[in-house]
Amino acid sequence: MGMKNMENITFEAGRGFAQQQDAEDELASFREAFVFDGSDLIYMDGNSLGRLPRGTVERMRAAVEIEWGRDLIRGWNAGWFEAPERVGEKIARLVGAGPGQVVVSDSTSVNLFKLALTALAMRPGREGIVSDVFNFPSDLYILQGCVHLLGGRHRIHLVPSADGVTMDQRALFDAIDERTALVTLSHVAFKSGFLYDAAAVTERAHQMGALVLWDLSHAVGAVPVELDRWDADLAVGCTYKYLNGGPGAPAFLYVRRALQEEALSPIWGWFGQRSPFAFDLEYEPARGITRFLVGTPPILSLLATESALDLILEAGLACIRLKSVRLTSYLVYLVDTVLAPLGFALGSPRDPARRGSHVSIRHPEGYRINRALIEEMKVLPDFREPDNIRLGLAPLYTSFVEVWDAVDRIRRVVEGRRYLDYPAHRLPVT
Amino acid sequence: MGMKNMENITFEAGRGFAQQQDAEDELASFREAFVFDGSDLIYMDGNSLGRLPRGTVERMRAAVEIEWGRDLIRGWNAGWFEAPERVGEKIARLVGAGPGQVVVSDSTSVNLFKLALTALAMRPGREGIVSDVFNFPSDLYILQGCVHLLGGRHRIHLVPSADGVTMDQRALFDAIDERTALVTLSHVAFKSGFLYDAAAVTERAHQMGALVLWDLSHAVGAVPVELDRWDADLAVGCTYKYLNGGPGAPAFLYVRRALQEEALSPIWGWFGQRSPFAFDLEYEPARGITRFLVGTPPILSLLATESALDLILEAGLACIRLKSVRLTSYLVYLVDTVLAPLGFALGSPRDPARRGSHVSIRHPEGYRINRALIEEMKVLPDFREPDNIRLGLAPLYTSFVEVWDAVDRIRRVVEGRRYLDYPAHRLPVT
Repeated sequence: MGMKNMENITFEAGRGFAQQQDAEDELASFREAFVFDGSDLIYMDGNSLGRLPRGTVERMRAAVEIEWGRDLIRGWNAGWFEAPERVGEKIARLVGAGPGQVVVSDSTSVNLFKLALTALAMRPGREGIVSDVFNFPSDLYILQGCVHLLGGRHRIHLVPSADGVTMDQRALFDAIDERTALVTLSHVAFKSGFLYDAAAVTERAHQMGALVLWDLSHAVGAVPVELDRWDADLAVGCTYKYLNGGPGAPAFLYVRRALQEEALSPIWGWFGQRSPFAFDLEYEPARGITRFLVGTPPILSLLATESALDLILEAGLACIRLKSVRLTSYLVYLVDTVLAPLGFALGSPRDPARRGSHVSIRHPEGYRINRALIEEMKVLPDFREPDNIRLGLAPLYTSFVEVWDAVDRIRRVVEGRRYLDYPAHRLPVT
Repeated sequence: MGMKNMENITFEAGRGFAQQQDAEDELASFREAFVFDGSDLIYMDGNSLGRLPRGTVERMRAAVEIEWGRDLIRGWNAGWFEAPERVGEKIARLVGAGPGQVVVSDSTSVNLFKLALTALAMRPGREGIVSDVFNFPSDLYILQGCVHLLGGRHRIHLVPSADGVTMDQRALFDAIDERTALVTLSHVAFKSGFLYDAAAVTERAHQMGALVLWDLSHAVGAVPVELDRWDADLAVGCTYKYLNGGPGAPAFLYVRRALQEEALSPIWGWFGQRSPFAFDLEYEPARGITRFLVGTPPILSLLATESALDLILEAGLACIRLKSVRLTSYLVYLVDTVLAPLGFALGSPRDPARRGSHVSIRHPEGYRINRALIEEMKVLPDFREPDNIRLGLAPLYTSFVEVWDAVDRIRRVVEGRRYLDYPAHRLPVT
């Protein structure tokens, strides 16, 4: 993964250095595979919604105008029906999963619901669910709902963080014991970008007899994921962040092959039935991973996702990770040298081995600075309470010059006190 | 609804009569609002996947290329975030629901799962679930999964049909008693097209203290639905059949306003949280119908659905129903006069008041006849086990001449014994 090399890079001040880095970037040509509108917008939110790949424009026109418009119902026999598995196999290559373990289905939350309930059913004598304060609130809501649905006998233990940026692995390990049914965490924390040593966590959970469910939403397509090698049990993840699948694109789920016969989805859907078109009145689960499918998938959104995956597979995760580490390390360098004197603190881990592909910077006026960046400076980061400006660096299309320019525009907003023009309250939607 | 008039229509033999009907059809111009490929294909499967509206072509190009491609994350603030409610309100007008009771979310199956579990939780002392053999197998699977998840104490009673075509209301009423928690049925049966008197069924269920959940998938956009007037409790439905929302388009759900405070979704999603962007760690359900949302919706599929709804609203359900009854009655006339002598039996109710917008015709060689129609005759119906050829008549774009021509092509396949060229086994996907 070239981490060692990464830590030894010497960064230099000045835009020329960034230009030099771009010139040497072996992924630079992938930028041309995405749609840009010709403006000087700096998009730093690819970790919330990835950019539109050019290939997806044509793919969606064909999906709508040819497959739906002309082929009509015959589209189901010409590729739609198998799409959840076909797209799942492409994602499998990005998460270190052998064949027959990943499908695309529903939203990340619905998939988490299915797999969390499955896991709890497989550990009937245990009442503990271990997660952490870094997890998506959306994941915690799903877990709370599962506990409610099962009668309230389970307990969710959220491991705290001492610094709000990193997680002490010892504290997490201490929380996992022989009463733990399920350990479920975000591989990359959505706020700070903290990256778990997933192999070690999985091993610890297994030592205690617990199952592990990873949320890969902020990891997939940006950091190395090795579900099979980790011996992970279950995973979910979203496709609209670094996978560039489009707004609200359907999510994926992984169930380790060895668990598939025992694992039963709580939602018995006809796409998960052994013979969906026999129209039998009794449900019989499909053999294998497709038993976790439910209803008819949203084909247009699903085909957009498929189209985008080919770019990531072509670039290769090793190169993507290498550039990601280089980009985030460069940004950390600029935070230290340019932004720290202006009152910013780094809100992400310094160690690139423990960091995903976004960097949070914290400032007491973070909310208003973020507003000014969006409204006046043509920079699009996002803001997470209470004071985090999150800068997502997407290796396939974020350039080093963009990182330099973004930091320079942040500097100008703060030095010029331009954020004072904005009211100090929350955005309704970020 | 003009049913009386409908029963008095006198139909005539010959293509000229169909041409005359088309000339007098006040919805004829809506046909031009859909994409046709210029071939002589007769599409009779709009009840499985509705045709592509022309307006959706442009809408989808804009959604992909402008909203996603240019606006990027800002799309959420420019209409995406409210889309589940906004599209829900359009559907509400088609199902007789006042504001604040319908949202678009997930698949029909996932919505049924949410609402069935909600209903069972609201009737804790009762173990009965009443449905019928006409319901979608997919709905029965979901119910079976709910029973399993809740520990197996509930019983599903499937009311049988004496003739496989219609349902005896008396038999259904007898199955509903004071042990019944939930009555859940398809308003229009997917196989025979039988249409329930939903007001009467709802009233009977309420007399017995049970809740009612209607699946409107084969009804919405084709027959009058009056959820508020029926005093219905819950409903789900799909948007890719008569609503022309595109393959696998997200589904809708309805919860009667008076139940919304008590009804709690079993899937606690962040789109159903009171303040999704506060990122609180504790779930608090939104007030009102949005508590039944779960994860980030598939925006591209959702916007395609929205685009199509305007056509139906413009045409108006009264006109749609009038034409639907006229089309299906004409087809029944042609079955009697042209197809019955060739061995076909009507597989749908004769009474238009008890019939949806598709007509099933049954023949011992139905499977092979269906194959021949698709492969050789440019007719696209669909086939449902064991011997049903289903002819879906979509009032916005199906013409009377198409009905005549479809029957004529069926006649030629049977008279010429062209179906004998095909093997007598099941289609893998229909």
